[in-house]
Amino acid sequence: MAKDFIKRADNYAEWYQQLVVKADLAEHSAVRGCMVIKPYGYAIWEKMQQVLDKKFKDTGHVNAYFPLFIPKSFFSKEANHVDGFAKECAVVTHYRLKNDENGKGIVVDPDAKLEEELIVRPTSETIIWNTYRNWIQSYRDLPILVNQWANVVRWEMRTRLFLRTAEFLWQEGHTAHASAEEAIEETEKMLDVYADFAENFMAVPVVKGIKTPNERFAGALETYCIEALMQDGKALQAGTSHFLGQNFAKAFDVKFAAKDGKLDYVWATSWGVSTRLMGALIMSHSDDDGLVLPPKLAPIQVVIVPIFKKAEELELINQKAFEWKDHLEKLGISVKYDNRDNQTPGWKFADYEFKGVPVRIAIGPRDMQNGTVEIARRDTKEKKVIEQNTLVDYVKILLEQIQTNLYNRAQEYRNNNLREANSWEEFKSLLDGPGGFISAHWDGSSETEQKIKEETKATIRCIPLNNKKEDGKCVYSGNPSAQRVLFARAY
Amino acid sequence: MAKDFIKRADNYAEWYQQLVVKADLAEHSAVRGCMVIKPYGYAIWEKMQQVLDKKFKDTGHVNAYFPLFIPKSFFSKEANHVDGFAKECAVVTHYRLKNDENGKGIVVDPDAKLEEELIVRPTSETIIWNTYRNWIQSYRDLPILVNQWANVVRWEMRTRLFLRTAEFLWQEGHTAHASAEEAIEETEKMLDVYADFAENFMAVPVVKGIKTPNERFAGALETYCIEALMQDGKALQAGTSHFLGQNFAKAFDVKFAAKDGKLDYVWATSWGVSTRLMGALIMSHSDDDGLVLPPKLAPIQVVIVPIFKKAEELELINQKAFEWKDHLEKLGISVKYDNRDNQTPGWKFADYEFKGVPVRIAIGPRDMQNGTVEIARRDTKEKKVIEQNTLVDYVKILLEQIQTNLYNRAQEYRNNNLREANSWEEFKSLLDGPGGFISAHWDGSSETEQKIKEETKATIRCIPLNNKKEDGKCVYSGNPSAQRVLFARAY
Repeated sequence: MAKDFIKRADNYAEWYQQLVVKADLAEHSAVRGCMVIKPYGYAIWEKMQQVLDKKFKDTGHVNAYFPLFIPKSFFSKEANHVDGFAKECAVVTHYRLKNDENGKGIVVDPDAKLEEELIVRPTSETIIWNTYRNWIQSYRDLPILVNQWANVVRWEMRTRLFLRTAEFLWQEGHTAHASAEEAIEETEKMLDVYADFAENFMAVPVVKGIKTPNERFAGALETYCIEALMQDGKALQAGTSHFLGQNFAKAFDVKFAAKDGKLDYVWATSWGVSTRLMGALIMSHSDDDGLVLPPKLAPIQVVIVPIFKKAEELELINQKAFEWKDHLEKLGISVKYDNRDNQTPGWKFADYEFKGVPVRIAIGPRDMQNGTVEIARRDTKEKKVIEQNTLVDYVKILLEQIQTNLYNRAQEYRNNNLREANSWEEFKSLLDGPGGFISAHWDGSSETEQKIKEETKATIRCIPLNNKKEDGKCVYSGNPSAQRVLFARAY
Repeated sequence: MAKDFIKRADNYAEWYQQLVVKADLAEHSAVRGCMVIKPYGYAIWEKMQQVLDKKFKDTGHVNAYFPLFIPKSFFSKEANHVDGFAKECAVVTHYRLKNDENGKGIVVDPDAKLEEELIVRPTSETIIWNTYRNWIQSYRDLPILVNQWANVVRWEMRTRLFLRTAEFLWQEGHTAHASAEEAIEETEKMLDVYADFAENFMAVPVVKGIKTPNERFAGALETYCIEALMQDGKALQAGTSHFLGQNFAKAFDVKFAAKDGKLDYVWATSWGVSTRLMGALIMSHSDDDGLVLPPKLAPIQVVIVPIFKKAEELELINQKAFEWKDHLEKLGISVKYDNRDNQTPGWKFADYEFKGVPVRIAIGPRDMQNGTVEIARRDTKEKKVIEQNTLVDYVKILLEQIQTNLYNRAQEYRNNNLREANSWEEFKSLLDGPGGFISAHWDGSSETEQKIKEETKATIRCIPLNNKKEDGKCVYSGNPSAQRVLFARAY
């Protein structure tokens, strides 16, 4: 509930943390760095999963499941991958506990030590490409278009609910192709799927781009990404799609016979989005009164709250409300009718507002007499009294309007907070002022990128796709530059 | 493919193993005891999940997600639970790897030892009840009706795909109630959900019953189960629902204020089914020609195979086939039209037969002339030539018939293989002969149960619900018995 709820302007990080907990989305667990995703938060994640899963299947992918554990030696096989992923991870060393001989509860049985340690997967390229070796002999076995919904673990010391947790949920696509062209096409296709999902379902505008070599996925030749801007001016990477070249095929010896009979290594992609999207969704739209959810991902799209004193009043309202609920649900709209008598209408209003329910319908005895009903929309807080007989159509259109309005609002914010910097002073003052995306010239060197990061904590979020070529001078080094790139401080 | 496929009568265990692998359902991974669920197998599991998830939601449950890891000390808190689950498990002891100083790849960093070891969840009662402590203050917070879809790990030395693997996928419901009555009602309700799913979707008849104290879930007051019979005469536990009493509430100090203000411990249930159901499904219906799937869980319900030599022939058939596919899909039937030209119709017939596709439609030039089409059903292998204009209705009804026929066939087998034994000699000769369920008197003692298990490997599968009371003498000890129970050798 909104009581004691901090304002964004006072402390954005604390506002986010409070919102996630008070809106019943997630909470910290007894296990350091691991979260509990509560039913209301999980219901949003399920909606995300449903939409994404359908998009994956519509683009020809199938789901499968690979082991949670990866033998330690697998990580050493791809030289870059090991540096990126085999460091902070959960290591299984034993497979048995036993009662302590001194009666001190249960202890690890030293006799049950694994010959080779197992790593709880931080990502599954290695175990999957080790499996693909047996699945692929010839071009006829290609492409393989597989996705996995799974939990992964990356040990993190400083965690934030949804944004950075030791265990998180995600999907990881792993595809195998007969040519580089086809693999690149797949990489770009899935980036488009992610961008479409972010913009048309999450109502979050994103910049599509490619990462600099410094920021690439460990083992990739090219990492594509979508970048969103949060309300505090910090960027958030919302999804990545990697062209892995033949790196994993070489590491795990996966070859195929081409049509001409020649053996070649298989080309790979991988792509993923995670429960981090929950963080992006929450931070993009919510306000000082709580969560704001786009209708397409809201577990409850419409709530109906009756206002009554006497049982007879409620009875009359019940009839109408169930009728509307029924009509709206036939249109595929999810409706909750909350006629509990142990909470006041005011309490319910505040609660559903805090939980971001897009549309609230309130109906009392006077409305019943007048044939009217009050509709409130969460995004703008506007209220309107309308004729009951127009309700169903009104709500249907209103939900579409809210979805569009949230996107437009977020896009306007993003556009207003994407600025050019043409000097180092300007760069720094923008960063320490409004923040946001800063479009600036960069000399293309990792050294410069690294120095900028060290001095300002800003990173190159991406080189936007279809970036305009424009000669200029690097904002930091003054060296020649062929294009601007997007900088920001980021989550 | 069916080539080199062993017969059930020759070696049932080997037949099962070959079937799972050759039908592309699952395979062993590089990680001991962990399986890879391949896309075709996973598609069946996804269908199971969809049906079950809807049933859970229709009965008022919501999904949530709890941590993969459980602190070791949590297991010690419930006295019985620790013996049942804290023994063979995956133990995380470290959280970092590093490059070996002697250049021998990567090694576990001894400086990154966890203060308290973490156990990869074998089941989640402990971490969930530790969480519920903060969710529950009063009766108003009850009931909590939560389900989780997750992976769990129980270290197993001898594994079999789907039936017994170190890591498996499952759902686990964990509910909290204000009274014992309500919790027992929930336990029984979920058992009914499982039985309904097994019988009406998997087409697998089950016996509903309760477990003896020996076979109870560690920490439960009562374990309800559904038991199915496989074609080799062995039983398989297909689902369990546990009434946990106040054991976990006491272990984790979860109390609630009742309406009268008195504090009491919360009452609990838990219930689960797993990818083990895949094993039950496969073994219940399949034959020496491969997989047989009930239509309601078949990823592909109907396959259309064109028979053609010339491109013009295929073109004509294509038109018809796409029209049928479209019609059938509008009825919610999943259809694959396989007009690949790099495989013969005969190869395709054998392949789809092996993969258990319930209905096959074959259409060639002569059919096109005659306005006919050939329909083959997988369960009975019957083929029939019908008029094209009756096809859609015919297929719709045929799918229902196949679903019913599979259930009836399995039920007939089960009924024929449920026998009474009235002497120890009869008991043993039934067990070593046809196997199956043996209904026999038991004196109710754990000692007798244990001795029967040691001598014959048969266990008490369950005491059937609504069991007929019938005085008799224990088949083993000769002591008085008030009812018969069901014995079998089991998976």
